[in-house]
Amino acid sequence: MSEDQRKDEDKALREGESAVDTDHSEPGAEEEVYELSRKNVAAILYAVDAGDRDRLIALMDPLHAADIADLLEQVNAYDRRRLIELYGREFDGEILSELDDSIREDVISVLSPQVLADAVRELESDDVVDLVEDLEEPQQEAILDALDDADRVVVEQALSYPEESAGRLMQREVVSVPEHWSVGHAIDWMRAREDLPEQFYHVILVDPKHRPTGYVTLGMIMSSPREVPLSEITEPSFRTIPVDQDEEDVAYAFNQYHLISAPVVDADERLVGVITIDDAMIVLDEEHEEDILRLAGVGEGSLTDRVIETTKQRLPWLAVNLVTAVLASLVIAQFEGVITAFVALAVLMPIVASMGGNAGTQSLTVAVRAIATKDLTGSNVWRVIRREVLVGLINGVIFAVVMGIVGIVWFGTPMLGLVIAIAMVINMVVAGLAGTVIPVALEKLGVDPALASGAFVTTVTDVVGFFAFLGLAAVMLL
Amino acid sequence: MSEDQRKDEDKALREGESAVDTDHSEPGAEEEVYELSRKNVAAILYAVDAGDRDRLIALMDPLHAADIADLLEQVNAYDRRRLIELYGREFDGEILSELDDSIREDVISVLSPQVLADAVRELESDDVVDLVEDLEEPQQEAILDALDDADRVVVEQALSYPEESAGRLMQREVVSVPEHWSVGHAIDWMRAREDLPEQFYHVILVDPKHRPTGYVTLGMIMSSPREVPLSEITEPSFRTIPVDQDEEDVAYAFNQYHLISAPVVDADERLVGVITIDDAMIVLDEEHEEDILRLAGVGEGSLTDRVIETTKQRLPWLAVNLVTAVLASLVIAQFEGVITAFVALAVLMPIVASMGGNAGTQSLTVAVRAIATKDLTGSNVWRVIRREVLVGLINGVIFAVVMGIVGIVWFGTPMLGLVIAIAMVINMVVAGLAGTVIPVALEKLGVDPALASGAFVTTVTDVVGFFAFLGLAAVMLL
Repeated sequence: MSEDQRKDEDKALREGESAVDTDHSEPGAEEEVYELSRKNVAAILYAVDAGDRDRLIALMDPLHAADIADLLEQVNAYDRRRLIELYGREFDGEILSELDDSIREDVISVLSPQVLADAVRELESDDVVDLVEDLEEPQQEAILDALDDADRVVVEQALSYPEESAGRLMQREVVSVPEHWSVGHAIDWMRAREDLPEQFYHVILVDPKHRPTGYVTLGMIMSSPREVPLSEITEPSFRTIPVDQDEEDVAYAFNQYHLISAPVVDADERLVGVITIDDAMIVLDEEHEEDILRLAGVGEGSLTDRVIETTKQRLPWLAVNLVTAVLASLVIAQFEGVITAFVALAVLMPIVASMGGNAGTQSLTVAVRAIATKDLTGSNVWRVIRREVLVGLINGVIFAVVMGIVGIVWFGTPMLGLVIAIAMVINMVVAGLAGTVIPVALEKLGVDPALASGAFVTTVTDVVGFFAFLGLAAVMLL
Repeated sequence: MSEDQRKDEDKALREGESAVDTDHSEPGAEEEVYELSRKNVAAILYAVDAGDRDRLIALMDPLHAADIADLLEQVNAYDRRRLIELYGREFDGEILSELDDSIREDVISVLSPQVLADAVRELESDDVVDLVEDLEEPQQEAILDALDDADRVVVEQALSYPEESAGRLMQREVVSVPEHWSVGHAIDWMRAREDLPEQFYHVILVDPKHRPTGYVTLGMIMSSPREVPLSEITEPSFRTIPVDQDEEDVAYAFNQYHLISAPVVDADERLVGVITIDDAMIVLDEEHEEDILRLAGVGEGSLTDRVIETTKQRLPWLAVNLVTAVLASLVIAQFEGVITAFVALAVLMPIVASMGGNAGTQSLTVAVRAIATKDLTGSNVWRVIRREVLVGLINGVIFAVVMGIVGIVWFGTPMLGLVIAIAMVINMVVAGLAGTVIPVALEKLGVDPALASGAFVTTVTDVVGFFAFLGLAAVMLL
C-alpha cells in the first residue's frame, strides 16, 4: 500500500468516519485508567499533519512515556516518523524503554544521533541493557557510544550474562552495609552518602566476603531505635537469586513468595545486583503473553509487525495443522465405502471430531497452566489425569445421549444414533486423557507444553474421533 | 473412589512406583526456585501416615506459607485433613491467605476454632478481607468474631466496597504527612511513631482536607538534606486510584505506569488507603489466568475442583460447541448429493474447516490480547483488520497451492484440486476477518471477547469452509 493511501485512510479515521468505534466500554472509568484516548490520538495526528510543534508538545506533555510508546505503536509507520521528527528533542529515553521491540529499531533509526544520545543518557543501566540487547550491531554501538565510560562498562558487563537471565534484569546500584551494623549506623551512613539510588526499598546486609545474609526494609529502619542491630530486624522473606537464573523463574519466585526486591548473587554467593518487583512484573506479563500466544499457535509477534513478518510467524503452525488435518483425512479415506452407503456419516462425523477437539483443548489448557504455575506435579498428576478422564466420560455420556437422539430424529436410523453416541463417549474420554498426558509428557521431554500440545491433542481427537465413528459405523451399519 | 483406594494410590506414588515423574527439567535450577520438591511431599505424607508430629513440623518448618498452601492443594482431601489435624497449632494465617479459594472452606472446616482464631489474628486487614470475602456466612462470622473490635470494623468497612474493587484490595494502614513538611520534620515524626506499618515504601503528602497531592519514596527521604521541603522531591509517577475502580484497571495502571504503590481516594478525593505493587501483581496474574482459561472455553475452575464441579464448568462451553458443530453439519447436509457422487469430498472437507479454524484462532488470540492490553484501539483497528485479512490471503494462497496439488495427486481430479484451493483461500481470508472483527465487536457490546470469540469464530470458519468447499464442488464437479 502506498503512503498516500495510508494517509487517506488515517485521515478518514481522524475525521471520525470509521464505523467501528473501539473506545472501551464505560467511558468514565476507562479514561481515568488510560490517558491515551482515541480523541487524543486524533488531536496529536492532526497537530502532526499541520506541522504544529508547539501544539504537539502541549498534547504530548501530560502523557506518560508508556502511553507515548503505545501511541507510536498504534499509528502507522508514516505518521510515526513524522511525529518523531516534529517532536524532536523532546523525545526522551523512557519512551524508547517502553517501546515494543518490533518498532524500536524503526524509531531509533528516525532519531537524530544527538537526540538518541541525550535520550539514552537519562536511563538507568538496567533500562539501557533492556534497550540494546535486541538491537542490531550498528544501532547497539551507536547507543553504547553515547554513554559515559563508566556506564558503558556496566552495560557491557550486564550484556555478558545470558539472555533472559537474572543478570540482564538486575540493577547494579545496590545499597548494602556490613551485617553487624546497627540502625543508627546505617541511617548516619545513608544520610552522609550522595550517590544513593532514587528508588530502593531494602538495605542489604553483607558478610565480610560481600555475601548477602539478610535485608531490612527502609520502613523497619525508620521505625526502629538507633541501637537495634540490623540483623535483628531482617525480613523473613529474604532469598537470593543466582545471577544466571532464568528470568521466568525469577518472576515465579517474586509472585510465589511476594518479594519486593531480592539480591542477586554470583557463583560464589557474592552480591552483584538487585532485582525489584516492577522488573519481575514485566517479565511475568511477558511470559503470560507468550503462553497465550503459543497456545493459539502464534509464535512470537506483535500488533505492529508487518504483513510479511506475521505471515511467516503463523505459517509453520498452519503447516503443522495441515499435516494433522491430512492425517485425519487419511483415516476418513479408509471408510469411503461406508460413507458412500450412508452419506449421513459425512454429515455427522465433524461433530464427533469437533467435540473431542474442544474437550481436549479444555483439558490441555488447564494442564498447561497448572504446569506453568507449578501446581501440576508428580504428587497430583495421577489424580488430575483421573479427574480429566472422568469429566470426559460424564460429559461424553451427556452429549452422547443428546447426539444419539439428534441422530435418530434427523436420520431416522436408531443404529446411527447409537454409533455417534458411542464414538462421542470414546472421543471425549480420549480427549481428557490426551489433554493431560501430552502436556505432562512434553514438559518431561523439555519441550514447552504451551507450544506443542495443541497440535498433538487435536491430531489425537481428530484421528480417534473419525476412526471410532466411521469404524463403528462400518461394523454396525453395513 | 473410597478413601482406602486413595490411600493405596498415594502410597504407591510415595514409594516411587509411578511411571510419570514430573519433577521439572533442570533439577538444580528447579530446586532453587521452588522448595516444594516431590521428594519433600512424599516425606511429609510419610510423616502424616506415621502420625509423627515432630517430624512433620521439622519438614514443614523451612517451607514458605505459599508452598504449604500448594502442598495442601496437591494432596488429596483425605491426606489434607490428616495433615492439618496433625500439624495443629502450627497452622498459621498466611497459609490460609495463600490457599486457593476452591479448598479454603474445606481447610477452614478442619481447623479447630482456637487455631483458626489465632491464625486470623496474625493477618493484615487486607489479607483478612481477601480471606473472608468468598466464604459462606457461618465461616465468615467465625473469622470476624476472632478479630479485635477495631480490626473487625476495618474489615467490615472494606467488605462494604464492591467486589473486585480497589477498596477491597487496599491496605488502610497509610503513612501520610502534611504537604508543607520538610524531610527533617518527616524523619523526626516517623522516628517518634510506634505504629508505623512494617512494609511501606512511600510517604504520602496530603493537603488540609486529607487529599493526597504527591508522594516521596523513603529512599529519597534518606538521601535528602533535612531542610528540603518534601514537596520538592515528590515522584513524577504519582497518581491516585478511585476506591471503586475495578481491580483489573488497578492492575493495568500498575503495569503500564510502573507504580510501586498508589494512594486510594474516595469520591471527595480524600485518602482512604494505599495499594502496593505486590497486590496488583496478584490481580494481574489472576486476570491472565482467567483470559487463558476463557479463551479455551474453561470458565473458572481450579485444579483442586472435584469431578462434578469441573464437569459442570465445562459443559456449557461444550454445549455451545455442539450447536456450532450441528450448524456446520446442516451445511454439509445440503450437499449430500454431491458427496455421494464424489466421496473424496467427505475425505477432504475437514481440512478446509480445520485450516480456517486454526487461522481464525490465531487472529482472534492476537486481537483478544491486544484488546486486553489496550493496544488495539480505534486508532489502529482498520490497519490490524487489513493486516489479518492480507495474512489470511497470503497463507491461504500458499496452502491452497499445497492442497491443490495434494488433491490432484491423491484423487487424480484436477478440478477437485482447484475446488479445495479456492475454498481454502476463501476460508482463510474469512478467518482473518472474523478473528479480528468478532472480538472487537464483542468488546464494543460489553461482552468479554476472551469468553465468547472462540465459539463465534469457529462457527464462521466451519460454516464458510464447508459451504465454500461443497458449494464450489457442486457447481464445478457435477
